[in-house]
Amino acid sequence: VKMLQQSVDSSNIGFTPLVVVELASDTKEEAITWLLSRIRDKQQNGGNGDGFFSMAECQYIIKHELDTLRAQDETHVPGHTQAKLYPGKSIIRRLQSKGILVQIFPLHEQEELKRLSFSWYKKVKLSLQPLDAIRHYFGEGQALYFGFLEYFTFALVPMALIGVPYYLFDWEDYDKYVIFAAFNLLWCTLILEFWKRCSASLAFRWGTLSRKKAFEEPRPGFHGVLGFNPVTGREEPLYPNTKRQLRIYLVSLPFVLLCLYMSLYIMMIYFQMEGWALSVHNEDPTLWTGILLFIPSIIYAVIIEIMNLLYRVAAELLTEWENHRLESSYQNHLVLKVLVVTYLLLATLLITSQILNQIMEAFLPYWLQRRRNKKMIRKVQTKRIMEEKELPLEEQVRLEADMSTYLGTFDDYLELFLLFGYVSLFSCVYPLAAVLVVLNNITEVYSDSFKMCRVFKRPFSDPAASIGVWQIAFEAMSVIAVVTNCALIGMSPQVKAYFPESEIQLILWTVAIEHALLAFKFILAFLIPDVPKHIQIKLARLEFESLEALKKKVTLCSLTSLSQSLIPGRRNILQVTLYIINVWVLENTVCKNSKIKQK
Amino acid sequence: VKMLQQSVDSSNIGFTPLVVVELASDTKEEAITWLLSRIRDKQQNGGNGDGFFSMAECQYIIKHELDTLRAQDETHVPGHTQAKLYPGKSIIRRLQSKGILVQIFPLHEQEELKRLSFSWYKKVKLSLQPLDAIRHYFGEGQALYFGFLEYFTFALVPMALIGVPYYLFDWEDYDKYVIFAAFNLLWCTLILEFWKRCSASLAFRWGTLSRKKAFEEPRPGFHGVLGFNPVTGREEPLYPNTKRQLRIYLVSLPFVLLCLYMSLYIMMIYFQMEGWALSVHNEDPTLWTGILLFIPSIIYAVIIEIMNLLYRVAAELLTEWENHRLESSYQNHLVLKVLVVTYLLLATLLITSQILNQIMEAFLPYWLQRRRNKKMIRKVQTKRIMEEKELPLEEQVRLEADMSTYLGTFDDYLELFLLFGYVSLFSCVYPLAAVLVVLNNITEVYSDSFKMCRVFKRPFSDPAASIGVWQIAFEAMSVIAVVTNCALIGMSPQVKAYFPESEIQLILWTVAIEHALLAFKFILAFLIPDVPKHIQIKLARLEFESLEALKKKVTLCSLTSLSQSLIPGRRNILQVTLYIINVWVLENTVCKNSKIKQK
Repeated sequence: VKMLQQSVDSSNIGFTPLVVVELASDTKEEAITWLLSRIRDKQQNGGNGDGFFSMAECQYIIKHELDTLRAQDETHVPGHTQAKLYPGKSIIRRLQSKGILVQIFPLHEQEELKRLSFSWYKKVKLSLQPLDAIRHYFGEGQALYFGFLEYFTFALVPMALIGVPYYLFDWEDYDKYVIFAAFNLLWCTLILEFWKRCSASLAFRWGTLSRKKAFEEPRPGFHGVLGFNPVTGREEPLYPNTKRQLRIYLVSLPFVLLCLYMSLYIMMIYFQMEGWALSVHNEDPTLWTGILLFIPSIIYAVIIEIMNLLYRVAAELLTEWENHRLESSYQNHLVLKVLVVTYLLLATLLITSQILNQIMEAFLPYWLQRRRNKKMIRKVQTKRIMEEKELPLEEQVRLEADMSTYLGTFDDYLELFLLFGYVSLFSCVYPLAAVLVVLNNITEVYSDSFKMCRVFKRPFSDPAASIGVWQIAFEAMSVIAVVTNCALIGMSPQVKAYFPESEIQLILWTVAIEHALLAFKFILAFLIPDVPKHIQIKLARLEFESLEALKKKVTLCSLTSLSQSLIPGRRNILQVTLYIINVWVLENTVCKNSKIKQK
Repeated sequence: VKMLQQSVDSSNIGFTPLVVVELASDTKEEAITWLLSRIRDKQQNGGNGDGFFSMAECQYIIKHELDTLRAQDETHVPGHTQAKLYPGKSIIRRLQSKGILVQIFPLHEQEELKRLSFSWYKKVKLSLQPLDAIRHYFGEGQALYFGFLEYFTFALVPMALIGVPYYLFDWEDYDKYVIFAAFNLLWCTLILEFWKRCSASLAFRWGTLSRKKAFEEPRPGFHGVLGFNPVTGREEPLYPNTKRQLRIYLVSLPFVLLCLYMSLYIMMIYFQMEGWALSVHNEDPTLWTGILLFIPSIIYAVIIEIMNLLYRVAAELLTEWENHRLESSYQNHLVLKVLVVTYLLLATLLITSQILNQIMEAFLPYWLQRRRNKKMIRKVQTKRIMEEKELPLEEQVRLEADMSTYLGTFDDYLELFLLFGYVSLFSCVYPLAAVLVVLNNITEVYSDSFKMCRVFKRPFSDPAASIGVWQIAFEAMSVIAVVTNCALIGMSPQVKAYFPESEIQLILWTVAIEHALLAFKFILAFLIPDVPKHIQIKLARLEFESLEALKKKVTLCSLTSLSQSLIPGRRNILQVTLYIINVWVLENTVCKNSKIKQK
């Protein structure tokens, strides 16, 4: 492997290398020269950011610059005629798709990594995670994930504390049951609302809360005809929204619905198999028929797992093909596709659990744990060496290039989402669910942090203001939890005993209470502000100060003359001016009327 | 009546009078001098807004200036020792409460009013209302109300068109019934979503879409200790939020709940009375017992009407007492209080309608119409003269001072809300509801516009970006409509016939479909963007240009030195700078790394 180590090559002139760009061994010399000149073209004489940016921020900027490197009039990569280019095509992406560029990754900083890992996972401790340090090293997206993991674990503690006595003592008591369900509901709503506030506080501290989506650059995979962005006026690829909508509604949506239908169909087959196994077992119960009882569930679990993997690949391809302009929009559509199927998976778990019962109780956390650990142990054994001694830079680059790539927080969040669903849907039936998830989460903090620091290549930092679409996913789950919990309680024999003669009464009451709970939940979510008051004030002051700065520049008189010279577009100008003078006017009344009165 | 006609007094020096301040006849001369000097104190040398503002905008600015006139070290109004003042107390408000100031109102412009009324209601026409002209004369709040009224009427036309054949032909058909209900549901959701977009378009055209709530001045009735606004740094009264919360949750909430309980209690008594009347009628049916059947409903309607009036007064007093800082917050709490009771009223109508049946069908629109017309006719007869001839200014002021005061759009919206509830809840049962409401709305456009132009004093314009809390109220109603419609369909004999042997099956299916419809509704509301795409782009460009303007002023270097000199508060500064340089940095990579690479 031949490497174009932009940074390493010049390691003797005394600056810290940030990002490695690995090219294939058969790359032509002229392609390298061209790429370097294109990268340098973009650079202009800016200020000097020394000490102002963290290393992760610098790496992010380099990544961004590389991602937005787009072909202008080149028809192909010099020296590689098979790598076609057209105006607006992302150069890096074409190089990657043609195998010329093997990978781009930021380098670890050994010193900082040691400090971070020591304060993070190296010692068993009771203190919180060093979120600011994590953010400084890995960026906001990672830090928010670990913040959420920690918050979620703490939030589960009350549920766990209540769950233990429920499990230990007999809980065949109707009142207790309802109290537990009501607590569960309140808990779901409150933790999600308060997480929004926590997340806003963190994002404010890290300076990402006010990020403007509209100014976001298009994601590297985005392609289209080169044109001018209507907001910023910059040259970038444009892709008509209607075309994307057509792809979503005519291809992706039918595909997802087909998959849902297939899943339901397989579930039905599973139920038939299980019914058959049960009838065999009931006719003549032996050890073998007892084992037979589990076979449908096992086959079903295996099929579901395989189908899930296939579906995941298809979902990623489809979402990529939908050609979303923004990374956030891409994420939203991917998460949506994956989650509709995940909901079904959880619903299946709920139904199958009637049979798997106590086994299931520990199954999900264990299963997730096992999957993760297996991968990790394999990796670590080969990489152990790294931690031991200080390596020369070239050696370090070579080592890190071989480490596997961290594919983003998607799978981590999906796992947390499953656990959240497990607790919120099942904890009425299995009071120990919360305890198990807390234990799982504690090990998860350690294993995830170890994974980030030692197993994977350093990921590029990604500035994030919140956990994004996952907040909505978790909230949707908490709504489903209300419905499910109410149905579970309604079906329980204890509650049924209260309505001995009329099942209709029971159902109507259950539905009425469920509606009241849902209404209460929405009102609660509406009443709790998403951003803490003191941060709202700070943001408002920030905006106020921006407007004040503008006011000093733009005088009303010039605006008046401007608006009069542009009578046909007067309202558009007024839009601008009213926005600016909103505050200005109210301070210094400028009406002709008042001036005359003063005389 | 002795008038301090700020404007009229100096009417000879050739400017247009805008606002009239009417003082009581026994006002001391020194109080007038003091008030005039205080008003003039506030004026500073601003620019000259000649031709830039509409008359309504100028009047709004004057109103704002008067409202924010607050006492500083005066202990009482000069010459009126009974009118005590303390720092931060609104002067105008104290003058009003002590009867020294009778009223403040803006003057009509006869010429413009004639033009407006001619294009608005003077001729029967098929064209739309002149919303821009209405906005120019009355302000955004009024124009949005009339825009909504018009939009709502047009939106009802499809419902009305479908309703007529349902009414004329036999509609005992199950499938048709379900189709009508599904259409109703879709209609409710879609019209509210698209109204948001319409409203955003209008507000954008009028320049109010980007109004900043945080910079809003406190409402005149707001009182508290004089302090400094944490956002703007200006001196204004402050009132602790916790105190307000206590008042809301410990006084207002229990009061509303008590009223709801009482309403329910009265409803129960009504049902008992009606049951008794029915049993009397069934035992021995005569003409008299036939009349007796209606008596409980009539008594109930009268009691409800009286209680509603009392409750409305109490709600206003309570909300005033809660001491909200912003007018919007005051409106929200008042609307909330009034609406919880209104929902109950509508629920009652739904239940009583089983008996009042066909009478009810025309009752609500007629009842609303009657109430409005009665008031109006009385007023107009005495004011007819005004329209006839051009009056001298003094005469005009005297005439307008006697006209009754328009109390805001609250009642108009409440009426539309009742009509919307009537259509969305009842149209399944009474397919003609939409037709009746359309007819009512057409007359309403004419009567409301006439009322605004000729019956009431000109109201102060109020800048509004949307119909505010009413949007939420209408949306809540549309959710309730889904639940109610599903229940009505489930109870209908046609549907019951489909589940002859099992009522449980019927209920479960009804609930399942209701949940699916609700989920569909929320997804639909989520998918339709609230602001049209082209306006989103314009707003983003506006913000982008503001940032660009800021960038030119603030160089990164000065920010760097600033942030380094303020290490302890570094993150706060970074918040400011990241906000500003977000775009800047990505354009001009400033990393040390890239600079060195260039060498």
